[in-house]
Amino acid sequence: MEPNVSDALTVLGRTPAVLRALLHGLPAEWSDRQEGEGTFGPPDVLGHLIHGERTDWVPRIRLILESGDRRPFVPFDRRGFGPVDRTPVETLLDEFERLRSANLAFVRGLSLSPSQLALEGRHPELGRVTLGQLLATWVVHDLNHVAQVLRVMSARYGAAVGPWRRFLGILNR
Amino acid sequence: MEPNVSDALTVLGRTPAVLRALLHGLPAEWSDRQEGEGTFGPPDVLGHLIHGERTDWVPRIRLILESGDRRPFVPFDRRGFGPVDRTPVETLLDEFERLRSANLAFVRGLSLSPSQLALEGRHPELGRVTLGQLLATWVVHDLNHVAQVLRVMSARYGAAVGPWRRFLGILNR
Repeated sequence: MEPNVSDALTVLGRTPAVLRALLHGLPAEWSDRQEGEGTFGPPDVLGHLIHGERTDWVPRIRLILESGDRRPFVPFDRRGFGPVDRTPVETLLDEFERLRSANLAFVRGLSLSPSQLALEGRHPELGRVTLGQLLATWVVHDLNHVAQVLRVMSARYGAAVGPWRRFLGILNR
Repeated sequence: MEPNVSDALTVLGRTPAVLRALLHGLPAEWSDRQEGEGTFGPPDVLGHLIHGERTDWVPRIRLILESGDRRPFVPFDRRGFGPVDRTPVETLLDEFERLRSANLAFVRGLSLSPSQLALEGRHPELGRVTLGQLLATWVVHDLNHVAQVLRVMSARYGAAVGPWRRFLGILNR
């Protein structure tokens, strides 16, 4: 049940364009929102994705290739991205795109084999995980956060849709 | 609680690019999926959105402006788009983009006033709804279906993520 590396890289390569299409130049009222205390609004999502490109996905891939499960992953601080409030969304989009592109070039250059995808690392909380699982998680993590951005945007019209609300699952999750 | 028309049109105008960034040229295994019997996969979503551009949103806007709530909306058949299996995703993306663009140009040309947004129409199931609610629903309906595409794509790696699954809400909805 290993992911196809080429497919995974294809999907990962699209996320910056998807988020740009959704968020670039959008009035701030659409992005200055969250789903509740401690949750991410769109700028937080971008900060979190940028932080993941810097400290999470590729460092963990390298660690598995270099040390297997002998050394656990460094725990990832999902809020470790610092304040993003005063950074324009465009700047965050550019930075995410740049880092993602470089990381995918690095991973593509590894030409990961099926036996490498089966190599195990050690997650500080989840225990043993494979490189293939890490790669699949990177993909789904992206899609999960794009869905979060869509929920936050939808909530802006949560009341404005009136009685249609009950047909719109995204407002009721 | 009326939506801002300019903002609504801005968000509506982006959906074709968002779906294109997600789906263009993606291997068929990513789009030939659904969430269960009778649910939409990505090509169905595109077919449904195209059908809505043709028969739902703008015809209902026109009906409210012309007849108010004297005549109910024509019921919308959410499966009325016919088979999409043998249509390339690119063709569906192009068609959706073309229709959406024309519809937004039409609505922009109406220069809808606040009093027009408060006009009422009659939904066959929900009863009285306003033009503003219809416009807000159009927006959230888009975001809802993009989120559906993301869920279907994520499910492809539902097993491949291994123990990470419990951190990935999109796999557990």
